[in-house]
Amino acid sequence: MTKPLLQIALDSTDLASAVTIANSVESFVDVIEVGTILAFAEGMSAVSTLRKRHPNHILVCDMKTTDGGAILARMAFEAGSNWITVSAAAHIATIEACKKVADEFGGEIQIELYGNWTLADAQKWVDLGIKQAIYHRSRDAELAGVNWTPDDLSRMRALSELGLEMSITGGIVPEDIHLFQGIRAKTFIAGRALASASGRATAEALKAEINKYW
Amino acid sequence: MTKPLLQIALDSTDLASAVTIANSVESFVDVIEVGTILAFAEGMSAVSTLRKRHPNHILVCDMKTTDGGAILARMAFEAGSNWITVSAAAHIATIEACKKVADEFGGEIQIELYGNWTLADAQKWVDLGIKQAIYHRSRDAELAGVNWTPDDLSRMRALSELGLEMSITGGIVPEDIHLFQGIRAKTFIAGRALASASGRATAEALKAEINKYW
Repeated sequence: MTKPLLQIALDSTDLASAVTIANSVESFVDVIEVGTILAFAEGMSAVSTLRKRHPNHILVCDMKTTDGGAILARMAFEAGSNWITVSAAAHIATIEACKKVADEFGGEIQIELYGNWTLADAQKWVDLGIKQAIYHRSRDAELAGVNWTPDDLSRMRALSELGLEMSITGGIVPEDIHLFQGIRAKTFIAGRALASASGRATAEALKAEINKYW
Repeated sequence: MTKPLLQIALDSTDLASAVTIANSVESFVDVIEVGTILAFAEGMSAVSTLRKRHPNHILVCDMKTTDGGAILARMAFEAGSNWITVSAAAHIATIEACKKVADEFGGEIQIELYGNWTLADAQKWVDLGIKQAIYHRSRDAELAGVNWTPDDLSRMRALSELGLEMSITGGIVPEDIHLFQGIRAKTFIAGRALASASGRATAEALKAEINKYW
C-alpha cells in the first residue's frame, strides 16, 4: 500500500489569500486543492494561477461535478488540474463523461461521497475505471459536532476493498490517523490545520502518524 | 396554482457570451440562471455582472451546493442572486445553513434532485421551510437518450403534493409541457432552445402551452 499524501484545501473566498496560503505550505504538502468555495469565487483563473505557481504539485479542482461533466472536466483540466472531484450523486453518464476527459489529459477523477450512495454505485464507478473517492465528514456535519463513527470507518474499508483509494477529510488531526489504518488512503486533506501558524508542525505530526501505519 | 415562469440557463464558458445571450432573451424570460459551468468559469463576477444588467429579473446561481453551505450561499446572495441551488445529496445541516443565509437576504433555496434522494429526504427539506426543487433529466442522461418517463412524472407529482414548487429542465420543448399538468410548476428551464435565433418563437410556444394547462 502506498503512503498517503498530505493535501491542503484552499477554501478562501479570494485568490490572493489562497496564493499566500499555498506559498506558505508548498514545502510540506503534496497536493494543492482549489476548493469549491475558491473555484466559485474566482473561477478557473484560480486553477491556472496555482498551476503556474506550483508546477510540481498535484493540483485538484474540487468541483463536486454533478452534471455537465464533459464541459466542467475540460475546463478544469485545461486550466491545469491533475484531478477533479465528481459528486457521488451524479448520473453514471456524467461520471463516465468526466472519466473520458480525464483520460485525455492523463488526469484522474475522485468521487465525492455525499448523499445516499450505495456499494452498488461504487462498483459501477470501479467498473468505469475510477480509482479514487473522497470520504468526509461534511463541513456542516462537523460544525454540528458529528464525529467519525464506526459506520464511517466500515464504509471506508468496504470502498477500499473494492479497490478505491480514499482521500479522507473533515477536521483531520494527527490523533485521528490511526483510525484509518488498513485503508487504502490516497491523501489526508486539511485546510485550516495546515494553513495556520502551526501548519508545518501539524504536517510533521500527521506524517509521523502516517509513517507508523503505512 | 400560479403560472409557471420561463427561465434561461446561461451555461457559457465565458461571461461575454452569457451577457450577449441574456440581452437577447431578457424581454421574454422571467428568470436568468448563472449555470454551474458559467459560475465555475468566471466566479461570482458572473452573478454580479448579470445582476447589474438585469436588475428586475429573478437571478439564480446554480451552485448545486453540496457542502460549505453558509459561505457559498453568502457569496451568491451578496453577488445578487435571488435563488441558489443546493444538491439533494448535501447533508441536512448544509441545507439548513443555506436556508438560514437565504432568509437573511430574502432569497430562496432550490433543491437540485440528483442522486438517490427519497421522499423522506424531501419531507425533511419541507420541514426546514424549503419551497422549491428542481427536477431534470441530467444533461448527460439526456445526451445518452434517456427521456421523461412515467416514473419521472410520478416522482414530480409526489414532490408537488408535499408542497414543493418544481422547476423542470432537461431538453424542454413546447410539446412536453402537457406532461407536467397538475404539477406545482415554478419554472420551466431551457438553455439553447431559448438562446437560439428562434428563441422568441420557442418562448411564445412554451407560454401558449403553459396557458393551456395552468
